[in-house]
Amino acid sequence: MNKPLRIAIAGLGTVGCGVVDMLTRNAALLSLRAGRGIVITCVSSRDKSLKRDVDVSAYAWVDDSLHMATRDDVDVVVELIGGHEGIAKDLIEVALKSGKHVITANKALLAHHGFALAKLAETNGVQLMYEASVAGGVPIIKAMREGFAGNKISAVYGILNGTCNYILTEMRETGRDFETVLVDAQEQGFAEVDPSFDVDGIDAAHKLCILSGLAFGVKLNFENLAVTGIRHITASDITYAEDLGYRIKLLGIVRCNNGKIYQSVEPCLVHEDSTMGAVEGVFNTVLVEGDGIEIGQCIGRGAGAKPTASSVVSDLVDLARGYNVPTFGVPYDALVDADWGENGSLMARFYLHLSVTDRVGVLSDVANILKLNNVSVEAMAQLGHDPENPVSITFTTHAVKQADIENAVQKIAGLPAVLARPTMLRIEEI
Amino acid sequence: MNKPLRIAIAGLGTVGCGVVDMLTRNAALLSLRAGRGIVITCVSSRDKSLKRDVDVSAYAWVDDSLHMATRDDVDVVVELIGGHEGIAKDLIEVALKSGKHVITANKALLAHHGFALAKLAETNGVQLMYEASVAGGVPIIKAMREGFAGNKISAVYGILNGTCNYILTEMRETGRDFETVLVDAQEQGFAEVDPSFDVDGIDAAHKLCILSGLAFGVKLNFENLAVTGIRHITASDITYAEDLGYRIKLLGIVRCNNGKIYQSVEPCLVHEDSTMGAVEGVFNTVLVEGDGIEIGQCIGRGAGAKPTASSVVSDLVDLARGYNVPTFGVPYDALVDADWGENGSLMARFYLHLSVTDRVGVLSDVANILKLNNVSVEAMAQLGHDPENPVSITFTTHAVKQADIENAVQKIAGLPAVLARPTMLRIEEI
Repeated sequence: MNKPLRIAIAGLGTVGCGVVDMLTRNAALLSLRAGRGIVITCVSSRDKSLKRDVDVSAYAWVDDSLHMATRDDVDVVVELIGGHEGIAKDLIEVALKSGKHVITANKALLAHHGFALAKLAETNGVQLMYEASVAGGVPIIKAMREGFAGNKISAVYGILNGTCNYILTEMRETGRDFETVLVDAQEQGFAEVDPSFDVDGIDAAHKLCILSGLAFGVKLNFENLAVTGIRHITASDITYAEDLGYRIKLLGIVRCNNGKIYQSVEPCLVHEDSTMGAVEGVFNTVLVEGDGIEIGQCIGRGAGAKPTASSVVSDLVDLARGYNVPTFGVPYDALVDADWGENGSLMARFYLHLSVTDRVGVLSDVANILKLNNVSVEAMAQLGHDPENPVSITFTTHAVKQADIENAVQKIAGLPAVLARPTMLRIEEI
Repeated sequence: MNKPLRIAIAGLGTVGCGVVDMLTRNAALLSLRAGRGIVITCVSSRDKSLKRDVDVSAYAWVDDSLHMATRDDVDVVVELIGGHEGIAKDLIEVALKSGKHVITANKALLAHHGFALAKLAETNGVQLMYEASVAGGVPIIKAMREGFAGNKISAVYGILNGTCNYILTEMRETGRDFETVLVDAQEQGFAEVDPSFDVDGIDAAHKLCILSGLAFGVKLNFENLAVTGIRHITASDITYAEDLGYRIKLLGIVRCNNGKIYQSVEPCLVHEDSTMGAVEGVFNTVLVEGDGIEIGQCIGRGAGAKPTASSVVSDLVDLARGYNVPTFGVPYDALVDADWGENGSLMARFYLHLSVTDRVGVLSDVANILKLNNVSVEAMAQLGHDPENPVSITFTTHAVKQADIENAVQKIAGLPAVLARPTMLRIEEI
C-alpha cells in the first residue's frame, strides 16, 4: 500500500464533522478506492471545548489554523471555515503557496477570488478542489470539468439554493405566502435566522459564478450577475403559474449567445412536468446544454452534513489517486475576460401578473402599452370580476426582447388602475 | 505544449464518426482542456469505401483493426465495433497487453468479460475506460467511480434503454399498444429491425451489470440477473397505472440488503411526479442511493452519435490529463464474488392487474388466494361491469414478499374466471 494521504481539516462545523464521520465510517472502503489510506493528521476550529458528534481527540489540535498550511505532515488542507475574506482566504493562500492541495466548500470565496486562487494553485503545482461548493452532494463540478469536457457548452441552468426551493415548494403545496413559509423553514432549520443570503439569491449567485467559469472558460465575475431573489413571489403567482402548467423556481442561468455571456439569478417559470420542475423541496439540480450531450442534468441534496461531506471526500479520493486537472477546466492563463451581455437584449417568453381595479379601459391601456413595446401576448386570463375588489390579470407572452417587456411593465406599473408592482417572470423552456 | 495523445479508432459507424466529428470540431477547446492535443493517427472499419459524414482521409487506414493494437504511434485504442466476442474482444485484449489504453462503448463485452479485462488493464498498467457504455452522454461511470467514491452505495436504479423508454412514453401519451408503437419506433429509427435486444431487456441488463460492479465492488455477473422486458405491457396497464399516479418504466435495479446483492431488469411503477417518472422518451437516467449523498441522479440522452461521442471524448480528455483509476473503482483483485440474493425474498409494494369474467365469486376467490399467500391489499378498483365482457381489476398491495405474491399470481392465473395472464409489476418508491 502506498503512503497515506494526510489531511488537515479547518473548521469543525456541520460539514467538518460530516467529513470526519465519513472518513472514519468508510475508512476501509475509501482506502481500497483511493489506493491508499486517507488519514486526518490535524484539525482546528474556533472552539476546542465545543461538544461535537464526532470524536476528534485522536488528531492534533491546531489553535491557529494557518499553522496547518505549513505542517510537514499535511498533504491537503480542507477549508470548511467559510467567508470570502479573512482567515479562510489566508489559509487557502498560504496552503497553496506551501505546496499543499486545498479542498474547499467556500463558494463565496471562489466567486470573489476564484481566478487568483486558480493561478496560485497552478503556479504552485497543486490542486484546488471545490466539489462541495456547488449543489452539495451533486458531483456537478466533476461533470462539467471532466464528464462534459468534450462539449462546447451553450448554457447552464441550476436550482442552486435548497432553502429557496424548499420555500417555493412549500408555498405551492400549502398555498401559504412567503413570510409564513420562511418562518416555518427557519424553525425547522431549513433557513437561516438571517435568510437574506439565501432568499435574495446571493448564495445561488456565488454558485452560478463558479459554473460560468467552468462552462465558458471565463474569469469568475460576481459583478456582472443580475440577481433577483424570491421575496416578491406571492402565493397567487405560484397558483397562477400552476394553472398554466408551470412551477416557479429560483434559477441560476448562464448562457452564451453570439459570443456574449449572460448570467442571472432570478425566479423563473419551468414546465411542471419537466425534469427541472420535478426537482422539489431542498433538492438542487444543474442542467447543462452542450453540443455533444444536448442536455445533461444532475440532481441531489444541495446541503447538509453528509451530502456535502460526500463531495469533500470525493475530492480527497481524487487527490489520493493522483488527480491533476486545471482548477476551472483550462489553465488559469487561458481563462478570459468574458464579453458580458445585457440580459435585456435576450429573447424569452414571459409571465406577467397585474392586480388592477376592475373598470372600463384598463385592459385596453395595458394592451396598448404592450403593443407599443413590441410585446406580443400569447394568452391572457382575467381572474375574478368584481368592481369592489382588485382583479388579477395574467399574461404569457410570445418570445419578446427582455428590455421591451421591462419597459412595458414599467409603464404599466404607472397606470392609476394598477394597484401593485406587476410580477414579471421569464419562462424557461427546459 | 506536451506531446499529443495519439488515438486509433476501430469502427466508423454512427458513434465512430461522431467521435471523429467532435475531435475535429472542438479540437482547440479540447487541447486547452486536456493540456495537449488529441490526435487521430489511424482508423479502421469493415468497409473503407462506405460514404461517411466525416472525412477520414487524413488518418492512416488500417485494414485489420488488430494491427492498431500494436502500432507505435498509438497511445489509445477506441473500440467502437461492438459484439461481446470476436474482433472487438481480440482487439481490446491485444491493445491492453500491448500497453495501450482502451476506450470502449461495448456494454455487452464488459458485462460478459469485465473482470478479465479489468485484470488485463491493471496488470499492464493501462486504463480501460467505458463511459459511453452506459446511458450514452450521461457521465454516470465517472459519477459512480469518482463523484460518489466517498459513499457506501446501497442501491442503483436506472432507466437504461432509450428504445424502451420511448415506447413506454409513446404508449402512455397516445394510448396505443406495444406492437403499434414498436413499428412506429422502428420506422423512425428509435428501434432496431430486430428489437429483441432492447425490448426484452438484454441491453439494459448489460448496462446494469456494469453499474453493479461499480456500486458494490463485485465481479460482473450477467447470469445472476433476472430480466423481464416490456412486450407484455398493455396500453391498459399504462392507463391503470396512470390513474393511480404512476408511470411504467423499464428499470435496471441493483441493491444490497443484509450483505446480499439483488439485481434485476423489469418494468416497474414509479410516481409520475418523481424525478424518475419525469424522465421520458429516449432519455436515460441513473439514480444512486448512498450513505452520504442519500440520492444522486443523472439524466441525459442514452444514445445517438453526439451524446455517445461526448462520453468517449471525455474519457480521452481524462487520459490526456493522466487519469489513473481502477477499472471498476477498486483494484481488480479486490472485486469479490457477490453473495447474490433471490429477488423473491425482497419486500415491495406491487401493482396487479387481472382480466376476469364478471360473475359472482371471482373477487372472493382472488381475495382468498391473496390472503392465503400473505398478500395484503392496499387498494382495489374494478373497472367496467358488464356480464358480456371481461372486467378489469387492479390492485395495489402493501409491502409484501415478492415470492408470496408470485405464488399468489400463479394460483390466480389458474382460476377459470381469469382470462389472461395477470400483470404483476413492482412499485418503486423512488
